Amino acid sequence: MMKRQLGQTDIFFPVPAALIVGGTNEEADLATIAWVGMLSSTPPIVGVSFDKRRYTLELIRKTKEFTVNIPSTEYYKETDYCGMVSGRNTNKFEKAGLTPTPGSKIETPIIKECPFNLECKVVQEIQLGDYVLLMGEIVETHIDEDKVEFVNNRPQIDISKTNPLVYCATVREYWELGKKLGNAFQSGKELLNK
Amino acid sequence: MMKRQLGQTDIFFPVPAALIVGGTNEEADLATIAWVGMLSSTPPIVGVSFDKRRYTLELIRKTKEFTVNIPSTEYYKETDYCGMVSGRNTNKFEKAGLTPTPGSKIETPIIKECPFNLECKVVQEIQLGDYVLLMGEIVETHIDEDKVEFVNNRPQIDISKTNPLVYCATVREYWELGKKLGNAFQSGKELLNK
Repeated sequence: MMKRQLGQTDIFFPVPAALIVGGTNEEADLATIAWVGMLSSTPPIVGVSFDKRRYTLELIRKTKEFTVNIPSTEYYKETDYCGMVSGRNTNKFEKAGLTPTPGSKIETPIIKECPFNLECKVVQEIQLGDYVLLMGEIVETHIDEDKVEFVNNRPQIDISKTNPLVYCATVREYWELGKKLGNAFQSGKELLNK
Repeated sequence: MMKRQLGQTDIFFPVPAALIVGGTNEEADLATIAWVGMLSSTPPIVGVSFDKRRYTLELIRKTKEFTVNIPSTEYYKETDYCGMVSGRNTNKFEKAGLTPTPGSKIETPIIKECPFNLECKVVQEIQLGDYVLLMGEIVETHIDEDKVEFVNNRPQIDISKTNPLVYCATVREYWELGKKLGNAFQSGKELLNK
């Protein structure tokens, strides 16, 4: 297959369309961010990159805390809406029908309607061009109780039930997951002895 | 819905299962990395986090260049395999049936079988616990020519044809995409005037 060169782009997929909350249980705002990813496992650190003008970023800088909330597909319109307007003059939670609810380890709320949520404490901030990368140590993980089972005390998250929204960035498309293909650290075993 | 708390975890989804190549057209190695995400749009910088013992990381440090290659779902076993073994004593390209092929802007090859590829130059490296975050400025983007159309000279990538592999990290599951739900910056418009 021949390839086409598209030059210097920021096209990237598949990524989450995460809802990032900043602020407190008294006053919070949220932003839709596709530039989210894990940066380390030990300790678990997640990276979230904001356009430096974002209001949610201002709120996070005050408390040095934020939450990452992964919406399910039924909230793709609300997720899109939260990336289109600023919380400076709009109560986005109210307009989008999303509910801030207290976490357990930090003062920033999580989003009740999102099945998977991470509470994070900022450990580092780096300016990258027009963007600000916040690195947050994950201090708590929440999952809807009907979407997890415990086998030998280890959580097994049901991805079908969790139904996470998938985003194709710069292509500007929201997708849902289809079917599971296989398990990691097992699927590749048949090539080991090839 | 009540929530269960899972403590401090590195569970995260959906993410790419990216194949990261380091080295040169003469000698290269690849690693499967789920900790990949965009860090900035202007300039376009992608972040890739390696366990600090990875051989591919050693190769990247020599040339300060790497490529990010997004596999399609038909390569999920090969992708898994490349995350299970070290390139120190195995030619993973050969065993996995993947083909390194020259890029256009750097000396590190891209992977022919992956429909979407980014050529990157390292701009910064940060140690985070047991992990090393490499930040790479994207200098070239490749897409299989049968997976893109140009409308008014702008590329429109066909995500269905590209068929990117999706990974649910720590849950350890590979998934495929299902159906497209909507376009970004359009789907949320109906909430604007609510």
